Amino acid sequence: MTSIAAPSLLPSTEPAYPLLDSIVTPGDIRHLTSARLNQLAVEIRALLIEKVTVSGGHLGPNLGVVELTLAVHRVFGVESGDTVLFDTGHQSYVHKLLTGRRDGFDTLRQAGGLSGYPARSESRHDWVENSHASTALSYADGMAKAHQLSGDTGRVVAVIGDGALTGGLAWEALNNLGAAPERPVVVVLNDNGRSYAPTVGAMATHLAELRAAGRGASGRNLFTELGFSYLGPVDGHDTAALEEALSRACDLRRPVVVHALTVKGRGHPPAEADEADRMHAVGPAAPARAPGATRPSWTGEFSRALLALGSDRADLVAITAAMGGPTGLGPFAARFPERYFDVGIAEQHAVTSAAGLAMGGLHPVVAIYATFLNRAFDQVLLDVALHRLPVTFVLDRAGITGPDGPSHHGMWDPTLLSAVPGMRLAVPRDAAQLRELLGEAAAWREGPTALRFPRATAGGDIPAVYRDGPVDVLSVSGTRDVLLVSHGPLAGACLEAAATLKAQGIGVTVCDPRWVLPISPELLRLAAGHRLVVTVEDGLRTNGMGSVLAGVLRDSAITTPSYALGLPTAFLRHASRDQLLADTGLTPHRIVHAVLRARAGRALPHHARTSVPDGTRP
Amino acid sequence: MTSIAAPSLLPSTEPAYPLLDSIVTPGDIRHLTSARLNQLAVEIRALLIEKVTVSGGHLGPNLGVVELTLAVHRVFGVESGDTVLFDTGHQSYVHKLLTGRRDGFDTLRQAGGLSGYPARSESRHDWVENSHASTALSYADGMAKAHQLSGDTGRVVAVIGDGALTGGLAWEALNNLGAAPERPVVVVLNDNGRSYAPTVGAMATHLAELRAAGRGASGRNLFTELGFSYLGPVDGHDTAALEEALSRACDLRRPVVVHALTVKGRGHPPAEADEADRMHAVGPAAPARAPGATRPSWTGEFSRALLALGSDRADLVAITAAMGGPTGLGPFAARFPERYFDVGIAEQHAVTSAAGLAMGGLHPVVAIYATFLNRAFDQVLLDVALHRLPVTFVLDRAGITGPDGPSHHGMWDPTLLSAVPGMRLAVPRDAAQLRELLGEAAAWREGPTALRFPRATAGGDIPAVYRDGPVDVLSVSGTRDVLLVSHGPLAGACLEAAATLKAQGIGVTVCDPRWVLPISPELLRLAAGHRLVVTVEDGLRTNGMGSVLAGVLRDSAITTPSYALGLPTAFLRHASRDQLLADTGLTPHRIVHAVLRARAGRALPHHARTSVPDGTRP
Repeated sequence: MTSIAAPSLLPSTEPAYPLLDSIVTPGDIRHLTSARLNQLAVEIRALLIEKVTVSGGHLGPNLGVVELTLAVHRVFGVESGDTVLFDTGHQSYVHKLLTGRRDGFDTLRQAGGLSGYPARSESRHDWVENSHASTALSYADGMAKAHQLSGDTGRVVAVIGDGALTGGLAWEALNNLGAAPERPVVVVLNDNGRSYAPTVGAMATHLAELRAAGRGASGRNLFTELGFSYLGPVDGHDTAALEEALSRACDLRRPVVVHALTVKGRGHPPAEADEADRMHAVGPAAPARAPGATRPSWTGEFSRALLALGSDRADLVAITAAMGGPTGLGPFAARFPERYFDVGIAEQHAVTSAAGLAMGGLHPVVAIYATFLNRAFDQVLLDVALHRLPVTFVLDRAGITGPDGPSHHGMWDPTLLSAVPGMRLAVPRDAAQLRELLGEAAAWREGPTALRFPRATAGGDIPAVYRDGPVDVLSVSGTRDVLLVSHGPLAGACLEAAATLKAQGIGVTVCDPRWVLPISPELLRLAAGHRLVVTVEDGLRTNGMGSVLAGVLRDSAITTPSYALGLPTAFLRHASRDQLLADTGLTPHRIVHAVLRARAGRALPHHARTSVPDGTRP
Repeated sequence: MTSIAAPSLLPSTEPAYPLLDSIVTPGDIRHLTSARLNQLAVEIRALLIEKVTVSGGHLGPNLGVVELTLAVHRVFGVESGDTVLFDTGHQSYVHKLLTGRRDGFDTLRQAGGLSGYPARSESRHDWVENSHASTALSYADGMAKAHQLSGDTGRVVAVIGDGALTGGLAWEALNNLGAAPERPVVVVLNDNGRSYAPTVGAMATHLAELRAAGRGASGRNLFTELGFSYLGPVDGHDTAALEEALSRACDLRRPVVVHALTVKGRGHPPAEADEADRMHAVGPAAPARAPGATRPSWTGEFSRALLALGSDRADLVAITAAMGGPTGLGPFAARFPERYFDVGIAEQHAVTSAAGLAMGGLHPVVAIYATFLNRAFDQVLLDVALHRLPVTFVLDRAGITGPDGPSHHGMWDPTLLSAVPGMRLAVPRDAAQLRELLGEAAAWREGPTALRFPRATAGGDIPAVYRDGPVDVLSVSGTRDVLLVSHGPLAGACLEAAATLKAQGIGVTVCDPRWVLPISPELLRLAAGHRLVVTVEDGLRTNGMGSVLAGVLRDSAITTPSYALGLPTAFLRHASRDQLLADTGLTPHRIVHAVLRARAGRALPHHARTSVPDGTRP
């Protein structure tokens, strides 16, 4: 590949991306000469680097699929009935550029702007909005079945990374696809040898062997054993070679794997040199950073706390599902490599193998994004909790996450965990509490615990006025009108709201339960001593943490009315965390407003209400 | 194998199972001669047939693993530190017989009696209580890692069926096990070619090829591609051959797959001749059946309703995860084979491929046990609901299931589904409602729906007095003291309770919301018109269906107090459904009691209370 001439350095009278600017639909690339195609690839990379280093987003993966996406769109016709699916949709930026969304890159991942993932609202060529890995082959199987039934001749192609193949859902799909020679599906394996970090496991070793065997590798391999035809490996940066392989795959009219070798971060020396994750995702450029962003993140605080705990506790082991860096396990892994396990993009196995480790006498800490815990609910419930095994789940990116959009908000975990018998859930309000609660979790031997914290900077420590049982009381007042039960990092907002209410003559106590599951007798006593309870949480307000408290209050014949503030049961779009907190009523001002309405016995303001759908019934 | 002489026909003065009676610990079988071992196998089969055909339980799978279990216990020493794990624990009956639980088979699956699955409370040789498939390899990975860290030399062996290998969790584990040559784990593949029905998919085809190649098959296969040593195929009913293979596997001191070929139902002609599922599970013998068991089951009613709907709607397709028969899809599959998809034990793929089918313009009905939906929560949430795809989930075995125990009760689905934006949940009270609601679900095009019903006989149809919006009012009274909100099949109990309360002068309205998600304005209006609301559900009472209603009432400033009756957040042991409903307070008598206490403003009786753990805090 030629090196990139930075188009932004051209004289300003010339368009920066003349060829890219001429691409309006994917059909426009079909008749380009090889030289023009190469120039288009250069312009696409330059634009990605220019825009994404400013906006923040997934840079490395998209630099790796420039030629691959061009080849796919030249061989398949999305405007004439073919379906192109991208697994782990953050690799779809090039696809966006080729399907009429070039201008959107100025607002990438901003509120109201272009999504960092495929989005059906943006284009009819985006079929699925997927940020969780390993789904595309299953969608492809369903669509191919639908085509077969309806006689639709449109072709189905799914692009999936080698990392995503470590997920069990991908295996389930391969098992189904490979058994149906009558249904043609083209699987493009985008093999860059990595998920965030290098891909792990036996499958990665196997792919490395295929890479080493080189083009024309023949004979049996994992995919042929499963019924697929196999083409490759092919240079994933050679558009002509890719097109030839894809065309052959189509001609076979059966399930085919096209094995494309790509380089994550290709064409951007800083990315190619980044051994950690090849600039998998970059933050927004410095000028766009929020003030205070230099304060330590919750992830960083956890990282330090775990390292300290691991030094004290030889039985502590850490598990990640291919996210060791982003979840802060790096320092632990470097210090205790034999006690660190990356199981691949395999959340189910992360949890059940943790159960096995606990049966073997160790204390596993499973560090996982809150949204990815959804993938392993059954394993948490039956493989860990049913056996009362001491496993600590550390849920990063809990609550509103921000620019990654609906599938990355960690909104579901408190509801899920509330259904798990014996589960204990802690929500630290600050770094000091994170350290304390992580220590308590790791010391608990009777069953599982979970801690949750957001993707944000950890604010300053918030001292308690006093502690009663597990409950920290953060602010007291003479009269006991309202008890604000603050969950985790919303303590600051609750304290601000309390100050405003106190100024209006309303007596407000603010407490932090610290452990929100189980509900403590001390919290019940505190609630019974007030005229109104309002809970505030960064999770679903319907059937969330406040709902559990309200239920226990009713059961205990404590008649203090209890209102829950939190997130609606809705898919929240991408925007900054602060903006989404404001939109959903979790600011001091909106908390004050809700408390005043609840005191007056009025219906809650709309933004704070349960949002189970109110549409027409069937 | 020799045919079975039925020991129960021997003169009664001789013990029926003389050799089996002499086995107290697994060590006792280690020095038996080949002839004695064969006799032991005969006795074990005879006892299984005698006992399980009376008690009900998993007959076919256990008849298939008699020699395999004997061989495993002769090669591995569970009393000297080796660990034996059984995937899908219903294949552990023989293991139970060899580990001191022979007498328990008179009380198999009865309340207080022997569990039909491994149970840690029964034996220290039962490590995991697993009825959900595909977990054993992950436990084995965790235990092997723990052994490696602690220097424990105990060996780890996991027995897994070919059906369970179709589950993604098993793939995730294979990917991890195969990449660690330094950790010896023996995987015994119990290949009987079936889960319930014949195993489907490319993996099954591959195993069939290995079977055809015969013993000594060499060269590459799926397992060697993934880093395992492979031994087999070996006759799974030849104890000596199995022992030789297992011993060789141990000697290799690395990850090994021992491929054993077994026959489900082996040695019991009626089972071997049963092409449907080889007597996978048999019901209790006729005398033990509950009266009324000849009435149609909910499953049967659904089966007929789906067939009728499928005749009207050419776009309707049905999906099962290896449970076509038990979920009632058989008639649909026979009539519309091209619209029926068995994806293997692969709940995640069942859901995401359904999303693909819906994108292709079809209306998928995913028929699944409620407890297995846990395996696919993330796929329901993001792959279906985020895309607002019209998929109907039919949750069989919802609520209390009975003798299959804690992991089979379908208690979690309402809580999980309440967190899914746009999800609509219907709970029919009788067969007529099942038909009506299934039709409404299939007619809904704006997103997913779910229907749930229990494993029970469907009672007679219960007419409504009148319908208001979606709500059926089943019983009215002059004064409006109490509104009993009945969910699904508990309508009968609610009506009985209402009759008792009315006799005491308390005005009770009984209503059936039919659609419990979303909450309808009509239900809110009804609640607002009463002095007390009590909801009754066959699901978790904490953060269940009643909890959603209570939240919406609070939000709407409707001050009528609302109490939820339902199941505790606990793992309920195996017993009959009726007994467990009584234990958890869901009988007319207990409902009356709870209503009277709630009217008096007293704390609810203990059995009806939220059961988040109240143990010591960390």
